[in-house]
Amino acid sequence: MPTQPAELTVHSSQPYNAEPPRTALADLDLTPVALFYHRNHAPETPRIDPATWTLRVDGRVERPATFSLGALRERFDEHDQVVTLQCAGNRRAGLAEVAELPGETPWGPGAVGTARWAGVRLADVLRDVGVDPAATDVELVGADVSEEPGAPEPYAVSVPLDKALAPEVLLAWSMNDAPLAEAHGAPVRVVVPGWIGARSVKWLERITVRDAPSTGHFQAVAYRLLPAGASPAPGRGVALGPLAVNADVLAPDDGAEVPAGPTRVTGYALAGGDRTVVRVDVSTDGGATWTQADLDPQAGRWSWRFWQVELDLPVGTSRVHARAWDSAAGVQPADPAELWNPKGYVNTSWAHVTLHAFGAADG
Amino acid sequence: MPTQPAELTVHSSQPYNAEPPRTALADLDLTPVALFYHRNHAPETPRIDPATWTLRVDGRVERPATFSLGALRERFDEHDQVVTLQCAGNRRAGLAEVAELPGETPWGPGAVGTARWAGVRLADVLRDVGVDPAATDVELVGADVSEEPGAPEPYAVSVPLDKALAPEVLLAWSMNDAPLAEAHGAPVRVVVPGWIGARSVKWLERITVRDAPSTGHFQAVAYRLLPAGASPAPGRGVALGPLAVNADVLAPDDGAEVPAGPTRVTGYALAGGDRTVVRVDVSTDGGATWTQADLDPQAGRWSWRFWQVELDLPVGTSRVHARAWDSAAGVQPADPAELWNPKGYVNTSWAHVTLHAFGAADG
Repeated sequence: MPTQPAELTVHSSQPYNAEPPRTALADLDLTPVALFYHRNHAPETPRIDPATWTLRVDGRVERPATFSLGALRERFDEHDQVVTLQCAGNRRAGLAEVAELPGETPWGPGAVGTARWAGVRLADVLRDVGVDPAATDVELVGADVSEEPGAPEPYAVSVPLDKALAPEVLLAWSMNDAPLAEAHGAPVRVVVPGWIGARSVKWLERITVRDAPSTGHFQAVAYRLLPAGASPAPGRGVALGPLAVNADVLAPDDGAEVPAGPTRVTGYALAGGDRTVVRVDVSTDGGATWTQADLDPQAGRWSWRFWQVELDLPVGTSRVHARAWDSAAGVQPADPAELWNPKGYVNTSWAHVTLHAFGAADG
Repeated sequence: MPTQPAELTVHSSQPYNAEPPRTALADLDLTPVALFYHRNHAPETPRIDPATWTLRVDGRVERPATFSLGALRERFDEHDQVVTLQCAGNRRAGLAEVAELPGETPWGPGAVGTARWAGVRLADVLRDVGVDPAATDVELVGADVSEEPGAPEPYAVSVPLDKALAPEVLLAWSMNDAPLAEAHGAPVRVVVPGWIGARSVKWLERITVRDAPSTGHFQAVAYRLLPAGASPAPGRGVALGPLAVNADVLAPDDGAEVPAGPTRVTGYALAGGDRTVVRVDVSTDGGATWTQADLDPQAGRWSWRFWQVELDLPVGTSRVHARAWDSAAGVQPADPAELWNPKGYVNTSWAHVTLHAFGAADG
């Protein structure tokens, strides 16, 4: 189990699942590695010697190949990209308030983070081996072996070929300008911008080009949007892929006591897929009226967008809601009850924190 | 003014704005031309002689050119595509129930339709003239002159270059296997799949490649998502482009009297942008519980998706809600009040009809 910074809330140690508090994410374009959420599926973190690590690329390709880390570095150009990763279960706690979600990690607001990732483009590797015309999907297999499927199974998911060939998808060996840490997938992990974090496979060992999506547990059974009342089964529901527009308040903290009067409220918004965030609204009257937040520039095309607004808080308790709009006028739904699903994924309902404002006499 | 089939509701005659009833759209993969909505901005429909019509392509291109209809046909391959067009104001009546929208056409459910369009790819034309590396947007100018901007102005909007170069964007001269009708933009109109209908310029006369979006009224002032309380002004709010996920009930009609018992309810869903519809839910208890509808295959990648469900209606009045999910787990918001905006665009709130079911004794 990795050393845990004091700041992280550890939901489980094997697999290691941990998230930072929301306030730790505020105002930092890049999330420090020590504050980046951990979402794992295997009880043990793989420990891989980079000197002997290899990446096998096979399946529907013309020239199956095996690359060492050195070969990847020599053969392909390095690219970097600032990318926000968000777990499909981020904000699950809000869904669990609607109806219980037994056995699911109760993620708060912190299963999201942004880093600068550097490595090679998956597209360059795929072009090098030559993709068969019948190929439709690219399976990504990690060294982590999960016990969740019943019989132990290496973590494997896939992305459609068109996304795999997009220039933003990286096989990354660097995170925030430092070598990728073991806990985050060293020596090489995948980074799939705009998609649920579960597709950004860590400890990558194998890439198999296929003519169908992965049949692995984490794509065929888990990470699927199920209708209420359904239980997970292979192929049931809809596989989650691109993210829908989401946002959260990062500061002040939920439940914070703050002086009444002008109060700066900040957060992030993330459009998902290939959309962008065009507007963020904040309300202190439950959504009856909205104030538009100021949007910061993005650190990168695939990164979250910070927003901020100054609210004039009266003495007493205020509930602050926030919601984001994407570039297709998609907007977050109001109520987690509209979104509740048996695995507790994709809570994109309006964000909210409760603030307690005190007057001068209380200060 | 075109002859109006009896079935259309005419909102205004100059400009001619008309829509079919919802039931006329049900169960038809392709909407008959006579039932296709009309959304115009000029008091007069342009009447263009195809024999003398020309298309000018200029701006940031290497070889500005002028094409006759014959030249377009000879020089470029014909492609066809089944595409659903939806007006940004479709379902506006639902927003007008929240708060009035003076001066805006009160579209019901019918400002949407699907046709097979044939013509040449805009991308092929742009590649032929050679796009300047500094280009970012492609302006499309029609022959229709609108008086809405104050001073008369030809209808002009733009799409970003990457969309303009996408293979699905057509310069179409055929609609449902017949020559494009004058009322729908003859001799040549643009079809921009996945985007608000307002970008699919009719009576196309000029294409200007630019390094900025169009500054024409219908992109800089109209067709923008404004915050509540704002009035239209150049650059204010957010230009509408790709559509967000939407759906409607098409049959039975709103207010219909039907026999109690098993009742087939059908409708369409449209994901918008480049997303797809993955699920449609129907509720008879205001969204407390949902039944998943059956999804029909799509007639084309860019067409709507029909859905159907059999509901067991009790005697009395039922309100049937429907909502669609897209491939990024984006879902329609519940309430039009969440979406109300001063120009009354993009009402993507849950669809609904009220049905009155009568028993055997009433039959």
